[in-house]
Amino acid sequence: MRAVTFQGPGEVRVEERPEPRLEHPDEAIIAVEASGVCGSDLHIYHGRVPVEPGTVIGHEYVGTVLAVGDAVTRVAVGDRVLGCFHVACGSCTACLRGDYHRCERGRTFGHGSNLGSLPGTQAEQALVPFADVVLRKVPNGMAAETALFAGDVMGTGYHAVAHAGMKAGDTVCVLGLGPVGLCAVQAAVAGGAAHVFAVDSVAQRLDQAARFGATPVHLTEGNPKAEVRGASGGRGADVVVEAVGTPAAIEAAIGLARNAGTVSGVGVQVGRAELNIGLAWLKGLDLRLGLANVIAHVDRVLALLDAGKLDPSPLVSHRMRLDDAVEAYAIYDRREALKIILTP
Amino acid sequence: MRAVTFQGPGEVRVEERPEPRLEHPDEAIIAVEASGVCGSDLHIYHGRVPVEPGTVIGHEYVGTVLAVGDAVTRVAVGDRVLGCFHVACGSCTACLRGDYHRCERGRTFGHGSNLGSLPGTQAEQALVPFADVVLRKVPNGMAAETALFAGDVMGTGYHAVAHAGMKAGDTVCVLGLGPVGLCAVQAAVAGGAAHVFAVDSVAQRLDQAARFGATPVHLTEGNPKAEVRGASGGRGADVVVEAVGTPAAIEAAIGLARNAGTVSGVGVQVGRAELNIGLAWLKGLDLRLGLANVIAHVDRVLALLDAGKLDPSPLVSHRMRLDDAVEAYAIYDRREALKIILTP
Amino acid sequence: MRAVTFQGPGEVRVEERPEPRLEHPDEAIIAVEASGVCGSDLHIYHGRVPVEPGTVIGHEYVGTVLAVGDAVTRVAVGDRVLGCFHVACGSCTACLRGDYHRCERGRTFGHGSNLGSLPGTQAEQALVPFADVVLRKVPNGMAAETALFAGDVMGTGYHAVAHAGMKAGDTVCVLGLGPVGLCAVQAAVAGGAAHVFAVDSVAQRLDQAARFGATPVHLTEGNPKAEVRGASGGRGADVVVEAVGTPAAIEAAIGLARNAGTVSGVGVQVGRAELNIGLAWLKGLDLRLGLANVIAHVDRVLALLDAGKLDPSPLVSHRMRLDDAVEAYAIYDRREALKIILTP
Amino acid sequence: MRAVTFQGPGEVRVEERPEPRLEHPDEAIIAVEASGVCGSDLHIYHGRVPVEPGTVIGHEYVGTVLAVGDAVTRVAVGDRVLGCFHVACGSCTACLRGDYHRCERGRTFGHGSNLGSLPGTQAEQALVPFADVVLRKVPNGMAAETALFAGDVMGTGYHAVAHAGMKAGDTVCVLGLGPVGLCAVQAAVAGGAAHVFAVDSVAQRLDQAARFGATPVHLTEGNPKAEVRGASGGRGADVVVEAVGTPAAIEAAIGLARNAGTVSGVGVQVGRAELNIGLAWLKGLDLRLGLANVIAHVDRVLALLDAGKLDPSPLVSHRMRLDDAVEAYAIYDRREALKIILTP
Repeated sequence: MRAVTFQGPGEVRVEERPEPRLEHPDEAIIAVEASGVCGSDLHIYHGRVPVEPGTVIGHEYVGTVLAVGDAVTRVAVGDRVLGCFHVACGSCTACLRGDYHRCERGRTFGHGSNLGSLPGTQAEQALVPFADVVLRKVPNGMAAETALFAGDVMGTGYHAVAHAGMKAGDTVCVLGLGPVGLCAVQAAVAGGAAHVFAVDSVAQRLDQAARFGATPVHLTEGNPKAEVRGASGGRGADVVVEAVGTPAAIEAAIGLARNAGTVSGVGVQVGRAELNIGLAWLKGLDLRLGLANVIAHVDRVLALLDAGKLDPSPLVSHRMRLDDAVEAYAIYDRREALKIILTP
Repeated sequence: MRAVTFQGPGEVRVEERPEPRLEHPDEAIIAVEASGVCGSDLHIYHGRVPVEPGTVIGHEYVGTVLAVGDAVTRVAVGDRVLGCFHVACGSCTACLRGDYHRCERGRTFGHGSNLGSLPGTQAEQALVPFADVVLRKVPNGMAAETALFAGDVMGTGYHAVAHAGMKAGDTVCVLGLGPVGLCAVQAAVAGGAAHVFAVDSVAQRLDQAARFGATPVHLTEGNPKAEVRGASGGRGADVVVEAVGTPAAIEAAIGLARNAGTVSGVGVQVGRAELNIGLAWLKGLDLRLGLANVIAHVDRVLALLDAGKLDPSPLVSHRMRLDDAVEAYAIYDRREALKIILTP
Repeated sequence: MRAVTFQGPGEVRVEERPEPRLEHPDEAIIAVEASGVCGSDLHIYHGRVPVEPGTVIGHEYVGTVLAVGDAVTRVAVGDRVLGCFHVACGSCTACLRGDYHRCERGRTFGHGSNLGSLPGTQAEQALVPFADVVLRKVPNGMAAETALFAGDVMGTGYHAVAHAGMKAGDTVCVLGLGPVGLCAVQAAVAGGAAHVFAVDSVAQRLDQAARFGATPVHLTEGNPKAEVRGASGGRGADVVVEAVGTPAAIEAAIGLARNAGTVSGVGVQVGRAELNIGLAWLKGLDLRLGLANVIAHVDRVLALLDAGKLDPSPLVSHRMRLDDAVEAYAIYDRREALKIILTP
Repeated sequence: MRAVTFQGPGEVRVEERPEPRLEHPDEAIIAVEASGVCGSDLHIYHGRVPVEPGTVIGHEYVGTVLAVGDAVTRVAVGDRVLGCFHVACGSCTACLRGDYHRCERGRTFGHGSNLGSLPGTQAEQALVPFADVVLRKVPNGMAAETALFAGDVMGTGYHAVAHAGMKAGDTVCVLGLGPVGLCAVQAAVAGGAAHVFAVDSVAQRLDQAARFGATPVHLTEGNPKAEVRGASGGRGADVVVEAVGTPAAIEAAIGLARNAGTVSGVGVQVGRAELNIGLAWLKGLDLRLGLANVIAHVDRVLALLDAGKLDPSPLVSHRMRLDDAVEAYAIYDRREALKIILTP
């Protein structure tokens, strides 16, 4: 089968790979109908997140079940399914308390040996461990390019506000309007935020956030702090979603949050950084960091997508063939695309 | 001043009463701009909820502060304010854990000596104890007849879903589409329910619920259980709001909830009743009963009203003069009105 | 193998049965080291809970793994394990939100076809579906008769207070001091209740509760309401655990709870009953009913047992051979035993 | 009256000051029976926390009510009361959502103009604003030196574990065994932690933690990470309490917490610091920082003190006269004392 492989910084290739085979009874194999290219893939492309050359990449996917192991009972051959970007066993101590994203046997698709050596989904077929936990049936009539968001980017947007404990009536500020930030905007609006401020410096992204119901604020030309305070009686945001992934954005989030507010940091943080921890302490903030617990939210996210109350379709800027992956990554690298869907 | 008084079952009267005077430093006096007639007032009118003849009734109100005691600091003379239907001290053990509706010194406006002998607000003026806790400033430009909902009916609708722990993506079913039920519909929609089913037997109320974003289901001509199950993968509703106030409605709610779901009973229950407690136990339900904790929610409800994400104005069916209260109660008693606003 | 079977009301028998065989890759077979006789078994014995004649009964167990299906990875042949009284898949919508007790494919050991036709554990061997979710390794050095409580009675006691949201410093009242009630007493004491009142009418049980740190109150000779109010500034109990399983006990619990308090009903309720729903509404209670979510708690319960902070060993009144099960049930039926451990 | 005043770094003085007078109807004046010297006072003494020379310091206190304003109703002249280290209005948006520690009108005793210019309690008398919210009656028979902890150090210890969401059965690690850390140890033990590790480098403090039920681990001679992992199946601590107040301690806490665990930072953090934010993100941690919400917990803490389930009396190392405050601060500065109680 054909598959997109990482070769080295700035270089991907579409190569022939052997089709996956079932090796454990809880696995499924799916014929991929559509796969997305995500900001995390770009980290790999840039070499920021190291994976072995030759690794099949990609972790967003919708497809049809081709085969299931004997232990799989919730999906069957022929089912149209979507999956989550990482897998979880459903039975370890972490899973039993609902922390699927910290599963003791968790692995992430297409992220090399550091995250479990699980081949990616930008391929004609994909092997899915713990299929009963990881896969969900696509609701009737839902487009692949919509369903695919549930297991990754929209799941992360939902998590960003839900895990922060946002309540209807809250003021929310989202920093960074890539796909995750824009999905967080949608989730905040859908969940009843009274005000959602969306901060970025790219005009189209601000426009998209406005169409999703947020008040756009230009990072440098606008005044995020003044806007947030103006809408919240001077207090600041109840929840600040950090969807950039830099220490500076965490820092800005600390400044925008109200006293006893929450910073929800879903943007990838790497290594050491200087932070104004004193200000966070003085404000009594709750900093909630890390990957999204997508599996915990996937049923609710699907229900919202199916009801049309979340709709990521405006984020899909490019639809391309898997065979054109080299060009797709180049486009994405030039920041010309928001979300690229690849079909085999 | 003129005030609406209860005289006996089926009889109210507009009478002259002395203007209130400050007797405690935490009190405020307001000149009432608008007051609502509520389903609870009808319970009094019918004698179901006993109050002493001569009691000034009413508990929904917006007005302008005329005077404040020395301890009042958050509102000042001249402020335009709304208030909550009951008062709470903000300092007892119940209040400190956030249970304002169970304040040890709580009193309810216009409900006679059983609920603290606090004169009602269907009057030209009203005395408000614990004014700093109970009153909120009306956001600029908000109509009185909108603001007035925050402290009673919309606060209760918000509570019905928030206190039940509804999450974005849940399936909600609201039983009873009086003003409280319709406000619960709005709150569920605003808070991101994937599906809201609204059950009643009155066509206009069902139509209104549909305009608010719910799927209307006629109590007897439709099949609520089938509808709810159809939308929830056969499971039942995550949250059922009981806004009727009868044991039969609680019973129906138990039947409609999913396993481990929640029944949020905001409709007034009185006395003993036979219930299918065995079914509730088998399903592992959480029955959350009682008056709404309006004070805990009022800031968020106001934010949502101000942002236009909650809007009870379609519920206002009649605008009348305080002097016409006798006719207003007669109209309400004939169920010709959904919400009547009285202005002095 | 030998197994205890229900024959009809008042009659159990030890019979020869075929040894279980693996039929699904997520199953395990264990050689039972010890099994408990529980109040739920008595319901079956009395015919109150109907099961088919010939059903192998029992649902508390510790044993050694004899065989595992190909999908089982968390326990291996030779491991000493304990299990939960019911099984859960770990991957359905209910399980993914942590409601293992409401698993869509849940089955209960030894409860006949109504609860999934899963043979009981009062036998030499037992077949355990979803073994990775249901089984836990016994901590080194823990007695079988201690570990066995984690998956049933102590798990239920822990659930009774944890699911009710008890906080350190709360006042708790436990109604009914059978094994579940006594375990709830231990869990409340361990979790930091400032006061635990334990109500029953059997002297030994009251004495045992006192040794566990509770204040014993005789149901009829004492005055539970006065005691609870005396310790709580007149308010009533923050949490009332109902561990009797009668409508009268629910009724008593409603009376003992404080305003906005919680009634945690783990005692089995069957069918319809008249309740003072008006009082529950007036108090603003939260009634949390149903079977315990034992799987959600089992890791924490084991940690507490291992640390000696929970210790059910005083509840074990009889240790008998599986072959003596007929006598064991007769003793239990005469209420001469608190907990009987059967060993093959 | 006599009062302890800050004069400059390393210098306090007992001076004569005018007795306080009621200026607002929600105030009370108390005759101080006992006041504590706290680690926060030492920050002031060292000039790390700047206050104006001449400021009366101290913020822990028990006393008898001498006078109350007209709005005060929950305490009366002659009542023996304890108070919280800061005051809160009970009616602002922050207070109504339970964030008393972030009250919009909050002020802290004895911390100069930065925290509201509220004179301290190391004096013969103290003025207490918002007396109904801030003061609690001392339970009958409770020693002043015990009650005094409820409003500051023990309230903070309770908050450190409660605000972190610790559950019975969790593994907790407390970094820093000053009075706050030792109180957190007690609170964790009382709340049912299966394991509590207590880390410091001072032998007596480690010994005290052991007497409170923790496993002591010497910061440098022991191996906190290995100990915590050993007790938690290799996972790390569910909750790490940071009670030192340095970036290095936050850093250590990040290293000790399990995946998806919580760091509860009650130690004062000041200014900017370099942190391993990447590790916190990778682990998916929740960092909860800031002053304790003592008012929210004070009723439960008092109940636990009254029941003997929390007992800070072993922390009281010195009982001195207010007139000997100069010596008291010198002793405290030399780290010879754990808690000094001053009586006028």
